[in-house]
Amino acid sequence: MNSTRERASRPRVDWYVACVSKALNSGPIRSVIDGTPLVLFRSEDGTPGALLDRCPHRNAPLSRGSVEKGELQCEYHGWRFDTGGRCMHAAGILPEKIVRACHATSFAIREQQGFIWVASLPDTQPSQDPFRFSYIGSPGYSTDIEVLDADGSVHAVAENALDVPHTMYLHGGFFRQTGGRRIEREVEIRNYGSRVEAEYFGEERPAGLAGLILAPGGGTVRHVDQFILPSVTMVDYWLGEKTHVNVTVALTPVQEFRTRLYAVVSFRLPIPTFLVKPFLRRLFLRIFRQDADVLACQSENIRLFGEERFTTTEADTLGPEIARLLKSAETESEVKTAQAPVVKRTKIVL
Amino acid sequence: MNSTRERASRPRVDWYVACVSKALNSGPIRSVIDGTPLVLFRSEDGTPGALLDRCPHRNAPLSRGSVEKGELQCEYHGWRFDTGGRCMHAAGILPEKIVRACHATSFAIREQQGFIWVASLPDTQPSQDPFRFSYIGSPGYSTDIEVLDADGSVHAVAENALDVPHTMYLHGGFFRQTGGRRIEREVEIRNYGSRVEAEYFGEERPAGLAGLILAPGGGTVRHVDQFILPSVTMVDYWLGEKTHVNVTVALTPVQEFRTRLYAVVSFRLPIPTFLVKPFLRRLFLRIFRQDADVLACQSENIRLFGEERFTTTEADTLGPEIARLLKSAETESEVKTAQAPVVKRTKIVL
Amino acid sequence: MNSTRERASRPRVDWYVACVSKALNSGPIRSVIDGTPLVLFRSEDGTPGALLDRCPHRNAPLSRGSVEKGELQCEYHGWRFDTGGRCMHAAGILPEKIVRACHATSFAIREQQGFIWVASLPDTQPSQDPFRFSYIGSPGYSTDIEVLDADGSVHAVAENALDVPHTMYLHGGFFRQTGGRRIEREVEIRNYGSRVEAEYFGEERPAGLAGLILAPGGGTVRHVDQFILPSVTMVDYWLGEKTHVNVTVALTPVQEFRTRLYAVVSFRLPIPTFLVKPFLRRLFLRIFRQDADVLACQSENIRLFGEERFTTTEADTLGPEIARLLKSAETESEVKTAQAPVVKRTKIVL
Repeated sequence: MNSTRERASRPRVDWYVACVSKALNSGPIRSVIDGTPLVLFRSEDGTPGALLDRCPHRNAPLSRGSVEKGELQCEYHGWRFDTGGRCMHAAGILPEKIVRACHATSFAIREQQGFIWVASLPDTQPSQDPFRFSYIGSPGYSTDIEVLDADGSVHAVAENALDVPHTMYLHGGFFRQTGGRRIEREVEIRNYGSRVEAEYFGEERPAGLAGLILAPGGGTVRHVDQFILPSVTMVDYWLGEKTHVNVTVALTPVQEFRTRLYAVVSFRLPIPTFLVKPFLRRLFLRIFRQDADVLACQSENIRLFGEERFTTTEADTLGPEIARLLKSAETESEVKTAQAPVVKRTKIVL
Repeated sequence: MNSTRERASRPRVDWYVACVSKALNSGPIRSVIDGTPLVLFRSEDGTPGALLDRCPHRNAPLSRGSVEKGELQCEYHGWRFDTGGRCMHAAGILPEKIVRACHATSFAIREQQGFIWVASLPDTQPSQDPFRFSYIGSPGYSTDIEVLDADGSVHAVAENALDVPHTMYLHGGFFRQTGGRRIEREVEIRNYGSRVEAEYFGEERPAGLAGLILAPGGGTVRHVDQFILPSVTMVDYWLGEKTHVNVTVALTPVQEFRTRLYAVVSFRLPIPTFLVKPFLRRLFLRIFRQDADVLACQSENIRLFGEERFTTTEADTLGPEIARLLKSAETESEVKTAQAPVVKRTKIVL
Repeated sequence: MNSTRERASRPRVDWYVACVSKALNSGPIRSVIDGTPLVLFRSEDGTPGALLDRCPHRNAPLSRGSVEKGELQCEYHGWRFDTGGRCMHAAGILPEKIVRACHATSFAIREQQGFIWVASLPDTQPSQDPFRFSYIGSPGYSTDIEVLDADGSVHAVAENALDVPHTMYLHGGFFRQTGGRRIEREVEIRNYGSRVEAEYFGEERPAGLAGLILAPGGGTVRHVDQFILPSVTMVDYWLGEKTHVNVTVALTPVQEFRTRLYAVVSFRLPIPTFLVKPFLRRLFLRIFRQDADVLACQSENIRLFGEERFTTTEADTLGPEIARLLKSAETESEVKTAQAPVVKRTKIVL
C-alpha cells in the first residue's frame, strides 16, 4: 500500500462501510479500506472510533492490542489512544511529555442503520451523510444482510451487479430463459451526475423458479437498476402491487482487485416471506458464487495482461456510465447531483 | 505478462507446440506460450483454433467457457467465436451490430503428427511449416511421447538436453563412467545458421545399464546432438547397424523460467522393444527428474542473483551456440539456413 | 537479491555469524547473509570455507553438491573447489585449461568459540577480529546457546532486545509489574562510536517469577544494555555478589526483514543452575516468541505502509542510538571506538 498514490487517485473523501455494527463489540478489529488498514474499537459509552492501524511509536498494528476502559492499548509498548486518536499514555514517559506526534491518525466515523461507515481519508469529514438504505425497518418489508467478498474492482463488481445480459448465460438456470426467441427491450438510462439509473420496459415476469415465487400471478415488471456514488448498487423489481424486491449493496474497495459487499436484501411479497426466505437466500448466494467466480477470473486475466481492454456495446447499459461516475469522483473535488437527468434510450435484445 | 514487451523480445513469429492432439477434444483448454494465455478448441469438423484467452467484451478467460457446435462461448455474457476468432454472437445486441472490435485475437494453428502447433504472434502465419519429427511412424521404429515441464528457460533446458559432460556427474549412476581414466574425444560443431549440431567421435558403447541394453554387442557409437530454431533439440545415437535412438524434444517457452517439453523418443533395437520399453521409459523419466531438479535450482539462483553469470569452457560445445541462435532469432527478422556450415573442431575430456 | 545494491548500502566489511560450528560437519550447507547465499563446507583438516553459493560455470547452487576429500563438487557438471574457492576440476577440460573465471567467489571465514563467522563482502578481510563472547567457558558460569529467527530488521530486533518499557506490556506476566506506582529511573547512555550502552540506576529486583529465582534475597540490581557494531546486543544483570545474567546475541541480517539470532545466555546463580535451567530456558523462549510475534507484525506493517514512521520519546533509550551506529557503519569506511564516551542522562518512568 502506498498511501500517497491511493490518495492521489481518490481525492474526494467519502464514506465506506468498514463493518456491520454487530461485528464490533469493544474491539479492536482491523478493516482495510482502499489498501489502508484501519483499526476499529469502541469507547466506554459505545461510540466507535477508527484509527490508522499503525501505532505512531513503533508502527505495530494497533488491532493486535486490547481495549481497556474504552482506550485502545498497543500490545508492544502499551501506548493508549482514545477513539479520536489522542494518545492517553506512552510507556516510559510522563503524561506531560506526550506531544502531537504521539497521537494516532484518525478517521471520521458514523454508525447508522447497523453499519459503521468510515471516511476514506484521515482527519476529514465528508461533506454529505453516509448513504441510507431505503427499506431497513420499513413496514411490510423483510430485510436480510449479507457480507461477501469478491476479487474484483469496485467498477467490475458494480457493473456485474447491475448487468442484465450476463444473467441469461452465467446464471442460465435461474433467469431470463427466452427459449431462443429474440425479445427486444427498451431501456432508459438517466444520469444524475452523482448517480445513474437504467429502467427496463416491457419486461415479463422472470421465467424459471425465481419468477414462480416472486410473482405467482404473473404480470408486468417494473425494473430499475441504480449506481450511486461513491459505491452503492441498487436493483429494484416491482411485480404488480404486492411484490417488491430491493437489493442494495454498499461496496467497499479493499484492494485494487478486492471489494467487500455489504448487501441489504429487502422484500415485500404476496405470500408469507418465511416460506421462501431460506430458498431465496440460497438462490442469492448461489448466484453470487457464480458472479464471484467469473469476477475473480476476469481480475486475474486483467492483471495477467496488464490492463483492461473492453469492447462495449449498447447492451452494456450501466457499465460505462459507472466508469464515468467513478472517474469524475476521482478527478473532481465535488460531484454534483443534477436536478434533471441526462436521458438516453437504447435497446437490449434478450 | 506484458504482450508488448514479449513481442519486442521475440519479433520473429514461429511455431510452438501448444498441446498434443489427443489432449484437445472439443475443448476449450488453456495453453500458455511465452507468457501469453491462449485458448484452444475445435470446430465441428475437428479443425483446431487458437484464440487469445481473453474475451474482447469483458476480458473473462474464454477457456472457462464451453464449445457449442464448434463455437466457443464465453461463460460470462455468452459471446461466441469461431475458430478464426470471428464473433458469431454478442449478448444483448443484434448480429448486425457486431463490429470488428468484437472479434477475438486469433493465432495461426497447425495440427501435424499428433501435435498442435501455434504461431507465437497473433494474426501472422510463420513463413515455414512447423518442424516434422523424423521417426514418428517410420518402419522398424517404436515411438513414445512424453509431455514434461521444467523450471528453466528454453536456453537452459536445450543446453541441458544436449550437454555431454553433466551426464557423468548428475546422472553418474547411468552414464559414461570412465572409472577415473581421462579420455579425450574429438567433437565437430557444425553451425548452419538456423540449426547447429555437434558430432562426437570415437565414443564407446556407454558403460552402465543403459549401454548393456542399447548395444549388447558393444561397438563404436555415432552420436550427433542438434539444436534447431526456434526450439527443438535432437539427440541421435547409432550403435552399429541395428540400434538407433533418437530423442527429439520440441520446447515451448511457457514463462521466462518455465519450459514445456514435448519429447518424442524413437528407437530401433536389436531386441524386441517391448522387452526394454518399460525399463527405458523409467530410466528416461528418472534422468529427466534429475535434470529438472538441477534446472529448477539453477533458475532459482539466477532469479535470486538477478542475472546469469556463466563461465564457458570448450567442453560447453552447444550451449553458447544455442544462445547465439536464440539471440539471432530474437533480433533478426529472418534467420537463414546456410548451405555449408561453419565448422569448428574441439576436444572434450571424459 | 541485488548484490550491487546490498554492497552499496553496507560498504564496511564485517563479520557475521554464518552458523554454529556443530551445524557444519563436512558440509555443504547454505547460509544466507544480507541476501547473499553462501555455501559452507570443510576441508579435510576441518578448516571451514565460505563460497558464493553459485557455481561459476552454470550458476547451480553449490550447496546442492557434495564434499569429496575436502573439495566441494557441484552436482551439475562436477566442478570442484577448495575452501579458498580455487577450481580444482572442471568437467570436460584439462586442468591446465582452468582459468581465473573458473574460480568461485570466496569469503573470509573464522571459527571461534563454537561459531563460524563470515565476512560480509567477498575477497576482503575485516580489519578487526570477530566479536568474542565474554562468558563462554568462564569459571562459575553456565552457558546456553539458542539459534532463533525473527522477521524483523537488525535494527528492529536489536532495539527490541535492549528495550526496557515494552517488557511491562508485551511480557507483562513476567517482568516489571509496578502495580500502578509510577517509578522514575535514571538512565545513563554512553556512546563509544562503535558501541553504545545504557545503564539503569536504582532498579529493584524484578517482580514476578523471574525475580524470585534470579535473586531470592532481593537487593539492588546493576543493569547495563549494550549494542556493539556490527550487530551484537548484550544485556547484563548483576544482583548483589552472586547473581549475574548475561544475554549476548550476535545478529545476522538474512534479508531486509529477517534476522537470525545467535543467542548466548550465560549465568552465575546463588543456587545450582541445573535446578532452574529448564525453567529459565522455557521462560526465555516464551519471551522470545512474544517478541518475534510483535516484530513480525511490525515488519509486515512497515512493508504494507512502505516505510517506517516512528515517534521516539526519551524512554526509547537505545533504539535511536543503534540506528545512528548502523547508519555510520553503512556510510563511513571505518567506525572508530572512542576512548571516552559521549554521555547522556535521561529518565524513564516505569
